[in-house]
Amino acid sequence: MAKPLRIGMIGYGFMGRTHSNAYRRVPNFFQTEYTPVLQAVCARDADKVKAFADQWGYASTETDWRKLVERKDIDAVDICTPNNLHKDIAVAAAANGKMILCEKPLAMNVAEGEEMCQAVEKAKVLNTVWYNYRRVPAVTFAKQLIDAGKLGRIFHYRANFLQDWTISADLPQGGTALWRLDVAAAGSGVTGDLLAHCIDTAIWLNGGITTVNAMTETFVKERKHTLTGKVEKVGIDDACAFLCRFQNGSLGLFESTRYARGHKALYTFEINGEHASIKWDLHDLHRLQWFDHRDEGPLRGWRSVHITDGDHPYMKHWWVPGLQIGYEHTFVHQVADFLEGVAKGESIGPTFRDALETQKVCDAVLNSAKATQWQNV
Amino acid sequence: MAKPLRIGMIGYGFMGRTHSNAYRRVPNFFQTEYTPVLQAVCARDADKVKAFADQWGYASTETDWRKLVERKDIDAVDICTPNNLHKDIAVAAAANGKMILCEKPLAMNVAEGEEMCQAVEKAKVLNTVWYNYRRVPAVTFAKQLIDAGKLGRIFHYRANFLQDWTISADLPQGGTALWRLDVAAAGSGVTGDLLAHCIDTAIWLNGGITTVNAMTETFVKERKHTLTGKVEKVGIDDACAFLCRFQNGSLGLFESTRYARGHKALYTFEINGEHASIKWDLHDLHRLQWFDHRDEGPLRGWRSVHITDGDHPYMKHWWVPGLQIGYEHTFVHQVADFLEGVAKGESIGPTFRDALETQKVCDAVLNSAKATQWQNV
Amino acid sequence: MAKPLRIGMIGYGFMGRTHSNAYRRVPNFFQTEYTPVLQAVCARDADKVKAFADQWGYASTETDWRKLVERKDIDAVDICTPNNLHKDIAVAAAANGKMILCEKPLAMNVAEGEEMCQAVEKAKVLNTVWYNYRRVPAVTFAKQLIDAGKLGRIFHYRANFLQDWTISADLPQGGTALWRLDVAAAGSGVTGDLLAHCIDTAIWLNGGITTVNAMTETFVKERKHTLTGKVEKVGIDDACAFLCRFQNGSLGLFESTRYARGHKALYTFEINGEHASIKWDLHDLHRLQWFDHRDEGPLRGWRSVHITDGDHPYMKHWWVPGLQIGYEHTFVHQVADFLEGVAKGESIGPTFRDALETQKVCDAVLNSAKATQWQNV
Amino acid sequence: MAKPLRIGMIGYGFMGRTHSNAYRRVPNFFQTEYTPVLQAVCARDADKVKAFADQWGYASTETDWRKLVERKDIDAVDICTPNNLHKDIAVAAAANGKMILCEKPLAMNVAEGEEMCQAVEKAKVLNTVWYNYRRVPAVTFAKQLIDAGKLGRIFHYRANFLQDWTISADLPQGGTALWRLDVAAAGSGVTGDLLAHCIDTAIWLNGGITTVNAMTETFVKERKHTLTGKVEKVGIDDACAFLCRFQNGSLGLFESTRYARGHKALYTFEINGEHASIKWDLHDLHRLQWFDHRDEGPLRGWRSVHITDGDHPYMKHWWVPGLQIGYEHTFVHQVADFLEGVAKGESIGPTFRDALETQKVCDAVLNSAKATQWQNV
Repeated sequence: MAKPLRIGMIGYGFMGRTHSNAYRRVPNFFQTEYTPVLQAVCARDADKVKAFADQWGYASTETDWRKLVERKDIDAVDICTPNNLHKDIAVAAAANGKMILCEKPLAMNVAEGEEMCQAVEKAKVLNTVWYNYRRVPAVTFAKQLIDAGKLGRIFHYRANFLQDWTISADLPQGGTALWRLDVAAAGSGVTGDLLAHCIDTAIWLNGGITTVNAMTETFVKERKHTLTGKVEKVGIDDACAFLCRFQNGSLGLFESTRYARGHKALYTFEINGEHASIKWDLHDLHRLQWFDHRDEGPLRGWRSVHITDGDHPYMKHWWVPGLQIGYEHTFVHQVADFLEGVAKGESIGPTFRDALETQKVCDAVLNSAKATQWQNV
Repeated sequence: MAKPLRIGMIGYGFMGRTHSNAYRRVPNFFQTEYTPVLQAVCARDADKVKAFADQWGYASTETDWRKLVERKDIDAVDICTPNNLHKDIAVAAAANGKMILCEKPLAMNVAEGEEMCQAVEKAKVLNTVWYNYRRVPAVTFAKQLIDAGKLGRIFHYRANFLQDWTISADLPQGGTALWRLDVAAAGSGVTGDLLAHCIDTAIWLNGGITTVNAMTETFVKERKHTLTGKVEKVGIDDACAFLCRFQNGSLGLFESTRYARGHKALYTFEINGEHASIKWDLHDLHRLQWFDHRDEGPLRGWRSVHITDGDHPYMKHWWVPGLQIGYEHTFVHQVADFLEGVAKGESIGPTFRDALETQKVCDAVLNSAKATQWQNV
Repeated sequence: MAKPLRIGMIGYGFMGRTHSNAYRRVPNFFQTEYTPVLQAVCARDADKVKAFADQWGYASTETDWRKLVERKDIDAVDICTPNNLHKDIAVAAAANGKMILCEKPLAMNVAEGEEMCQAVEKAKVLNTVWYNYRRVPAVTFAKQLIDAGKLGRIFHYRANFLQDWTISADLPQGGTALWRLDVAAAGSGVTGDLLAHCIDTAIWLNGGITTVNAMTETFVKERKHTLTGKVEKVGIDDACAFLCRFQNGSLGLFESTRYARGHKALYTFEINGEHASIKWDLHDLHRLQWFDHRDEGPLRGWRSVHITDGDHPYMKHWWVPGLQIGYEHTFVHQVADFLEGVAKGESIGPTFRDALETQKVCDAVLNSAKATQWQNV
Repeated sequence: MAKPLRIGMIGYGFMGRTHSNAYRRVPNFFQTEYTPVLQAVCARDADKVKAFADQWGYASTETDWRKLVERKDIDAVDICTPNNLHKDIAVAAAANGKMILCEKPLAMNVAEGEEMCQAVEKAKVLNTVWYNYRRVPAVTFAKQLIDAGKLGRIFHYRANFLQDWTISADLPQGGTALWRLDVAAAGSGVTGDLLAHCIDTAIWLNGGITTVNAMTETFVKERKHTLTGKVEKVGIDDACAFLCRFQNGSLGLFESTRYARGHKALYTFEINGEHASIKWDLHDLHRLQWFDHRDEGPLRGWRSVHITDGDHPYMKHWWVPGLQIGYEHTFVHQVADFLEGVAKGESIGPTFRDALETQKVCDAVLNSAKATQWQNV
């Protein structure tokens, strides 16, 4: 019989749904020593949090996160709030000896992130950050190929995350639905929201980034604020691009924007090695593009690999070859791995400390854009 | 509070998993008057069915389907067995007043299918068949576009379902895992397994088929039988292709095989109308290809539409634009629709009677291939 | 110094341009013992043929093809007329000892084709038919792969040629521009015009076709005739699809139409073998799709091979890797090969006799559609 | 009767072939007042230049370019030499009153380029630079769409030109075949060779670039020199990426490398506007990707437009819809336009002055990379 791991979740927005779904589905598809129990969910609006708890089967609700992190019947705290609350909650949860699963980005800045790392390390609690795209099977498979040395020396890494949903100047900022446009709640714009994903994957696949050179832009300078009702200056970056160098000598190129008409959530990366290259695109996440120079000359070409076979990462838990999974499964995989980590008493990556590396790059990127010069990470 | 709909499922193979998952997920993503309750699952092997029940949360198990269909605490029977058991179970379930959700194809042949239709119609029980691909959002959207008249007069319909998993002559036939290769259990090969899907979608989108002309082939003539241990003649069709005519005057072309190297589960269809055309491919099921002749001339081209927006069918229940769903969601959608039907007291399509139309085409196809001549449906 | 091969071309329509271009370009890109000399072009309209001769550099013109085929200063006759003149011209040209390059399809029917074959064989003149798609580098490369046994046993061959330019009922039939819609000039519709290409390639790649089963349709039953000015019955097939069996035991599926909205000239074929599969598409003719089951399991995928390297067929004569050639180059290749054949005294494929095989399949297809039954070739 | 325009070409390498072909083909496909006459070709090796002249039909040869530019029977000088000779030849040709068609990049640096501009402007001779990709029909069509305002305000422009042919450290530098790797002959590496194309197109489509920030790398530090036989330091940039800002407020991102395994000549650009976006890729140059936000919501998607219709730029001169042209046609188009310019007495773009703008960006990019800071153009 599986041992319970009692979850207390704070926040119930988009990420609250993805995480709740993940907890519920793991037991049906993975054999794990621990099984998640939806013990409590917390949010300020008592009615709404009750409705959410009913829909997802949480056993109880809270409206004050401080109470939740102190509850004895909670083993792990899941932080799904806007970014500006991550630090306080994490520090308090750690102080109460809770394991922590924190949404990305880790924090508002490196200083907060460092404090969070010290908190979990001091408390010796298991911790992870929801950079979920690592666990797209195609992306995990890319990691395996790289680690097996199949690409040889790496020359180039490029990634972008392009969206188009904020082009209209009529869109307001702030509030529950649009806190990502409010610098006070989000800390930054596309850098923390989107590039952070690209950077986490890049560091995981290609190692550390040493120096960056960035450019940011805010195309719509003022937007009405949902909370104040007034037109206010927009403090976030609408677009951010940067050049960088990796420790392994390869060159990096990153771009993110919410003004690329035609792209809903185009997160792509490509990595060019001496022997082989890899491409991936979130819009068709179940495929990996693979080019191998060792193939017979006239038959060399980019292979479109449909990552749905039993010998692809995570896929033996799902269906049969040819039948794709989707976005939400990445969270299920992270929960499954986390539970395996719990059984071993080990944190799985990305840990807070891993996510701090991404935070350092984000901060360096924003500083570089402000100073219009190269910045060491 | 949602009213319970107590499910009794017979069979726990691949389809047993997809259905169980669907029942469990609906309440998290859809607001329905009824909610499924996993009351019982039935299979001959007591240990295995117990393990399955534990993993999916079924409240009880049975090893004899006759008992299950008689249980008073079951509202709906879900038939996930090999094809040769569909009829007996369905007739018995209907006689006991149960609603029925039956895996496809409806039956071994038209005669059985007719008996099943009469049974459910006599018993006045809600019924549906799991032709799940109707509820891929892109496919449902195609239906809406056609019904809105956006294609105009239809000239052509073509579909294929190509796989490559039975090419090895070492693969045995029969038994739990490979009953689809055993004519006694499956009734036919690719015709009932794969073409049936293509035909169901085609009739739904393009209306009835009047006449067919088919060719079948069995490439590997003998395979070891898992149950007998002996090399036996292969009775199924490995490949089947047919020409046909629709009631609306359009021409149809269908093909299915398990010998198309490189295709895992390539179910594609294309429909060419006077004003516009549609293409879809199961390998990238979250996309619809759309060509509209009414677009400005020099800018005409096939559009690749990423079916992940809130105004696409079913998608408001899931995530945000750009984030794809997968194969399993089609079953969730069918359960959600079925529950809505229960609330209204109406069967949703495809009903047994709808599925009988597909069965008629399948039988005509097999007869045509045997007789090497055109066959009316 | 290259020896002259004096060309006399009859007809100056679309094919007249592609052939004239081919003759002119070969010397710049290929080293051949013989070089084409544009000696004469023939058509009924004296002014127009003079203008054409000026633009392409023909040394002289004729308005009566009988005169042209008798001229002593012509070595090879190129037949670019509508199909109903192929036979008479070819027979006369052969009688005059001319080499012949004849547009496809070979003839109006098998009887004519047989007469043409006998004429060239009796006269012992070099002959070829312009089934130009054999010499798309990607298609020639497919031939090499198949002949090298890389696919193993072949299970399936499917091809289609889809267009959409005749959907409007206002389009007239007949005359210089639209003789392809006039059965008296063309002999058939899509069968001779488009499927003939598919069949020629198929026989070349996959061997003979033994038996066929076809369906044809004429969607627009009457069209104004350009020559008579009257609305007349349309005698051609607007669409044609057929099932077939090849001598090697593989199954074939062919379709052609001019009513597939969204396709300009979608000639595609796919061939599935035991070990590997090939796909090709005229719309992107510089690519070949290749799937190889011998690739490492998890990395198997369809490769998109950009056929622009020096070790791809014909490509060392053109540019550098990555820079594509186009449609017209197929004719250049055929002329280059023909000139090599002249140097050796050998006809290159497809010869008249080869093209007669395609004609036999076309006739069987049309007969099968008429008789609504299988037809041996 | 067309008037002759007597061409004297200097250099006969890869570009010598593309230009010679263009001159020869224009009269067959375009109606122009002037027609090119291949008067002379010049190169240092007398035998090789004679062979080249024979193959392409040049009337005479020279081995000293100074003689060629002084010949009275030459109207236009075509410069196809390595970059380090452009300036001297152009200045001398202008002094002799010749029209000039110069290969790209214009010069080794801005100072040389400025001298060249002044020379042609003083001499009042027609001049153009072979940035041929402007005249890919899909690219010209993009220009038309942008100029018609269909994209609205532009937010982003990104382009890259990726190759993989210099990854092997065994490849030597310098000499006839590999002068592009020799900084003394080429001036720079990928910046002048590849990025210059991207920059020319970008300025043409999106206006001037004001400031840049670049990063370059030389992965293979030493290579054997073909001429000296010694291992020498590599002076060129193997890879170059830069951020930039355009005058219209949009952000730019450019990258080029010869170390991107799997890409032969992947020149792509994408431009994101308020209302619509465009993508293009040299590997499939006959297609344009178009996304239009004004399309009906649920049917929005990227359109793949096959640029082969008569109403697409240049295409009425070629074949019929669906039949693609290739790389070499871009040069034919430039010659056709140049001849039209000659008839009007006007230079066509890109003129030397236009190409100087690109040179300025290239110089700023190289300077920025060296100085590791932003650089104004």
